[in-house]
Amino acid sequence: MAGQEFPKINSERRAQIQIKAPDAKDVSISIGKPLTVTKRGDGVWTITTSPLDVGFHFYRVLVDGANVADPASEIFRGGGGLSSAVEVPTGEDFFELKDVPHGEVRERWYFSNITQSWRRIYVYTPPDYDQNTSARYPVLYLQHGGGEDERGWPVQGHVSQIMDNLIAEKRAQPMLIVMDRGYALKPGEQPVPFHPPQPASPGSKVAPQPPTDFHRMFSTLDEVFTQDLIPMIDRTYRTKADREHRAMAGLSMGGMQTRMIGLAHLDLFSSLGVFSGGTIDPGNASQVAALKEKAKLVFISYGSHELDRPNPLRTGGDPKVDVEALKREGVNAVFYVSPETAHEWHTWRRSLHEFAPLLFPN
Amino acid sequence: MAGQEFPKINSERRAQIQIKAPDAKDVSISIGKPLTVTKRGDGVWTITTSPLDVGFHFYRVLVDGANVADPASEIFRGGGGLSSAVEVPTGEDFFELKDVPHGEVRERWYFSNITQSWRRIYVYTPPDYDQNTSARYPVLYLQHGGGEDERGWPVQGHVSQIMDNLIAEKRAQPMLIVMDRGYALKPGEQPVPFHPPQPASPGSKVAPQPPTDFHRMFSTLDEVFTQDLIPMIDRTYRTKADREHRAMAGLSMGGMQTRMIGLAHLDLFSSLGVFSGGTIDPGNASQVAALKEKAKLVFISYGSHELDRPNPLRTGGDPKVDVEALKREGVNAVFYVSPETAHEWHTWRRSLHEFAPLLFPN
Repeated sequence: MAGQEFPKINSERRAQIQIKAPDAKDVSISIGKPLTVTKRGDGVWTITTSPLDVGFHFYRVLVDGANVADPASEIFRGGGGLSSAVEVPTGEDFFELKDVPHGEVRERWYFSNITQSWRRIYVYTPPDYDQNTSARYPVLYLQHGGGEDERGWPVQGHVSQIMDNLIAEKRAQPMLIVMDRGYALKPGEQPVPFHPPQPASPGSKVAPQPPTDFHRMFSTLDEVFTQDLIPMIDRTYRTKADREHRAMAGLSMGGMQTRMIGLAHLDLFSSLGVFSGGTIDPGNASQVAALKEKAKLVFISYGSHELDRPNPLRTGGDPKVDVEALKREGVNAVFYVSPETAHEWHTWRRSLHEFAPLLFPN
Repeated sequence: MAGQEFPKINSERRAQIQIKAPDAKDVSISIGKPLTVTKRGDGVWTITTSPLDVGFHFYRVLVDGANVADPASEIFRGGGGLSSAVEVPTGEDFFELKDVPHGEVRERWYFSNITQSWRRIYVYTPPDYDQNTSARYPVLYLQHGGGEDERGWPVQGHVSQIMDNLIAEKRAQPMLIVMDRGYALKPGEQPVPFHPPQPASPGSKVAPQPPTDFHRMFSTLDEVFTQDLIPMIDRTYRTKADREHRAMAGLSMGGMQTRMIGLAHLDLFSSLGVFSGGTIDPGNASQVAALKEKAKLVFISYGSHELDRPNPLRTGGDPKVDVEALKREGVNAVFYVSPETAHEWHTWRRSLHEFAPLLFPN
């Protein structure tokens, strides 16, 4: 947090956190492996971790068994609750605030007839939106991951800095980006349980969980998108309201939603981005034919450590192999790997930074 | 937080919080007085407080001496850091999200030449701002309190709900509301220390602190407002860029800033709102003459419990007496007391709700 010395990252990419807990018997943190844990006479604990990957990492502090946020960190929504975070320097500045024209991130509420509730969205508008009042803009619908909410992309995703910089460099078209919540339930509807796709260990007496029904899990969100959200956006903002100028992307759960909702509605979306959210099966002939005919872009990405470390969240085929196969079938598919990052926000910032310039070519 | 049972408020306006801290020896919270503290066998602590005033209250949890946020609460910026909060039902709905046309709250960054740094603001735009593209709007500059930041009014202040509702009822003019950070330092400048105005206790060996130099404390912010912020807003948004259509208000420290900056610049502001931020001395003849000539409105407010309980933050004369004296001098002064609330956000929500309808009469 501004003005705080801790949490900090040392030259070996080790995180150091400090917390005052004079009467605690034990303090630990949830990232890396603890290298040293010390408690001073004044009750201040200092923990240094093993070296971390570059980029953004959520963490929590355990104080005598209480799982809490670090009072010295900004708070971010992720990991199913409110978490602290550290930013390990990357040497990159594509996601930093620079001296370029700035757009806005607008908070807006809209009523969903499908869920019968008010929903909050954030809408990135490019720097010239309020000046070129006769211009119309393409729209990217951009989804967060599981256990997060619509604040993910505007806050830790740095969506406005990434887009302001790309637009200033003339590397991306000015576009609107709509960020809605990835959860939607009709009145009385129960959430579909999500089972992480981990195989039961050999000899385990616990029965393997049934596979998660993703289509059912996201079917209400599909209705919200197609019946409430997209029509409201096209009524409210100066959009180019056709499929050629509409894209969908998301990270992790949001990537799965993009595959479910986007692939089912190629009449509404012409480009799809799936960041750490699975692959597209090149063996599904009718789907491949539809993508070849209608999709202007299919973008699949992962962090390199999602591919070279064990990763229960990565399911389906090998995304690189699948993308090559889709290309051979004539689909404009692109595969991107974020170097030295895992299933974390820096992978997704870089993915957006690679994906956005490919959207809406003139 | 959505979906969480705790923190909750019972029918006696007692807060109940619950936190899992299996190895903790002691857990306490910073609001009210604890009525009961229990620890179950599974390590879950439950604390019930004494009855609270209606409205919004920050709190923190102490786990074996560690001062942390409650993992089950949303996190708000206040009290000099990040705090949990409970909302004690008020029976009012003026600050709730209703089925009326909604404006936006826009996040924007601007560069301050005075501080040589980027500053983040939030700008409320009324529901018709993007439709009536030839209309121009008056502007209220609205400041948060000490230890908070520019998120205070959009988040716990419910500024957009209060304004959307007032505008829908045709009780307030559509206006822009600009919310900037109440702290500003030039390169190398040190913050002016703030001493809470508490008299040294009799017999204390601690020397009384010198009085805080408020004019110097807010002088850089004055320059930011007059040289950077107001010109940028008038360039960027469709404002009515004259003093008749420009107001300033704030709570607590923001009320003091309104008195300092607003009174010094009646050429820029025609209406001032001071919420729990002191009074205006009717004995200052030149100031009273300037207000009589130039001010369209001077609004002073407090929570009733700031007046009927000991309150070191209330300095100067009796605000009710002072407002009556200002009125007798011909100043359009208004005094408002928020029933049964203290130096807290519900006082300030109600103050905005009373103040905004008085602004910018046709």
